[in-house]
Amino acid sequence: MKLTLILFSKSAFLLLALALFFFAACTQQQPKEAKKQAFGMIIHGGAGTILKENMTPELESEYTAKLDEALTAGYAILKAGGTSMDAIQAAINIMEDSPLFNAGKGAVFTNDGTHELDASIMDGATLNVGAVAGVKHTKNPINLARVVMEQSEHVMMAGDGAEAFGKLHDIEMVDQPYFYTERRSKQLERAKQRESEGASAAEIIPHEDHKFGTVGAAALDQHGNLAAGTSTGGMTNKKFGRIGDAPIIGAGTYANNNSCAISATGHGEYFIRLTVARDIASLVEYKGLPIAEAGDVVIHQKLTELGGTGGVIIIDRNGNMAMPFNTAGMYRGTVDEDGTKVVKIYKE
Amino acid sequence: MKLTLILFSKSAFLLLALALFFFAACTQQQPKEAKKQAFGMIIHGGAGTILKENMTPELESEYTAKLDEALTAGYAILKAGGTSMDAIQAAINIMEDSPLFNAGKGAVFTNDGTHELDASIMDGATLNVGAVAGVKHTKNPINLARVVMEQSEHVMMAGDGAEAFGKLHDIEMVDQPYFYTERRSKQLERAKQRESEGASAAEIIPHEDHKFGTVGAAALDQHGNLAAGTSTGGMTNKKFGRIGDAPIIGAGTYANNNSCAISATGHGEYFIRLTVARDIASLVEYKGLPIAEAGDVVIHQKLTELGGTGGVIIIDRNGNMAMPFNTAGMYRGTVDEDGTKVVKIYKE
Repeated sequence: MKLTLILFSKSAFLLLALALFFFAACTQQQPKEAKKQAFGMIIHGGAGTILKENMTPELESEYTAKLDEALTAGYAILKAGGTSMDAIQAAINIMEDSPLFNAGKGAVFTNDGTHELDASIMDGATLNVGAVAGVKHTKNPINLARVVMEQSEHVMMAGDGAEAFGKLHDIEMVDQPYFYTERRSKQLERAKQRESEGASAAEIIPHEDHKFGTVGAAALDQHGNLAAGTSTGGMTNKKFGRIGDAPIIGAGTYANNNSCAISATGHGEYFIRLTVARDIASLVEYKGLPIAEAGDVVIHQKLTELGGTGGVIIIDRNGNMAMPFNTAGMYRGTVDEDGTKVVKIYKE
Repeated sequence: MKLTLILFSKSAFLLLALALFFFAACTQQQPKEAKKQAFGMIIHGGAGTILKENMTPELESEYTAKLDEALTAGYAILKAGGTSMDAIQAAINIMEDSPLFNAGKGAVFTNDGTHELDASIMDGATLNVGAVAGVKHTKNPINLARVVMEQSEHVMMAGDGAEAFGKLHDIEMVDQPYFYTERRSKQLERAKQRESEGASAAEIIPHEDHKFGTVGAAALDQHGNLAAGTSTGGMTNKKFGRIGDAPIIGAGTYANNNSCAISATGHGEYFIRLTVARDIASLVEYKGLPIAEAGDVVIHQKLTELGGTGGVIIIDRNGNMAMPFNTAGMYRGTVDEDGTKVVKIYKE
């Protein structure tokens, strides 16, 4: 009897221990399951020869304020449970509408003295994409790219055809003078002057103008969906209907829920050759690299070795963010799920 | 003394064994080092609803003969020690000049009744690239893409600008009627008829016209260098300056000596969304997949799951070749270093 009791007690103890173990395991699991989906956004307003000594405090404040405004607009959408697609579009629209950046108003001049804009957008949940190249009257090219994605059977359209499509879908059109800024006009003058003096291709864009003011944003929303978009006026003095990396899915823009979302800025030719955005996502997807490491491999190794300059912004499905660049500076900012904003211009 | 001798013999035996082992290892190595660099080429003339029951024996012979001619031209260059870049260009030129394929002469009609051609080329040794989109008078768009790559600071040009550049570099221009073929004209008529009857986008291109006759080639030369190129007239009835995957590096074309060279054909929108060519190369580069497996993952899994149709040709740095497609047929062919040619049209 006494023995039975002891045996029973032992069994009971074991059962109790087992129950406690499962309970503990269960409670340990709980915080993970109950943990809220991370969300956030990362933006850029171009990388290049951005040096503090060439900047006035006033201009610095203007850039900082505009980047902050773009982050605030995107965050409000994400915080309210909106989509990453809506958040990046809102942020990019603010930068497109500002003359500070080389996208929308403030776009650089082509060799012909016109403006030709490119943009692309990608939804990481569906792998839907939209892109436009060489448009001349679209106030916000990123909006046209989104309409191409959502309203057409095609994913990329160029020139007049793209804008004819945009008009059917109420995309706002403006006359070319809308894009004019004195600063960009002077950049073209300087470029043409140097060209006439026989400068090499690399020297034609003066050092102080070596800012690739492309704008872009990448975001993760509360539904766990990633999105990225890029908008640009291209390169000062560009000729021959040149297309850069901004409208090329896999070069300037890429988003995939299984890895990360990326927008690039820089010397587009190199970004196309290296398929920069897709390569970073592939290193995450296939080699399991953290985004910071994947970004370093592509920007600080591959791009730098090839002689290209620029940078990228990256956000992954857990809300981690990275923004590697190999230029003197990059206009950039992040906002996380707590609403904490960080805006930077120069190298650390 | 006897013991010493035995010990000596044993030592001698061991030394002899060791010497023999190294000698064997050395001779085993030799064939590998002395082995000649593999070389070869793979081409396609489009994938789609290509069924034996819709084909006449005469047309089948014409296709087979033209693919054979393209392979022969490329092989002659490779055999003579020429570059993979020259070999693919020669092969693509032959297909561009033939009315059988949707590239150069024989290109499909846009909705406007015009022809707009796209092409791209990539050098796997240097990662140099060239691409043109929406050109209307270039007899051989792949030649223009190569000139963009070699003679300009840009890598991608569109429309009139691209052709203005081409004229500066003696690229042959033709009037639009050069591209005319009765067959493509009837395809446009049928597409417009269906469209006016309210057919959905997917139904507008009649079943029997569902051939994406893009042409492409990928090659490995005796120097161990890979190259790939693609040339197309795009989709019948295309509108709004639509750009497909053919001029997009990483979508329709990719080449990298560290992995493989690829040219794609199919419903371009899906190839852009999946960055098909770069994704196959990434699976080879980062996951170590053989090209046949990488091609299957992207074509038979990813592309098929997304609802896209088409195929790719792949050659790796060891001369292995693969040509996966998920359509009824794909005009395709291979030639290896022995000059052995294989030409196929339908599914096995």
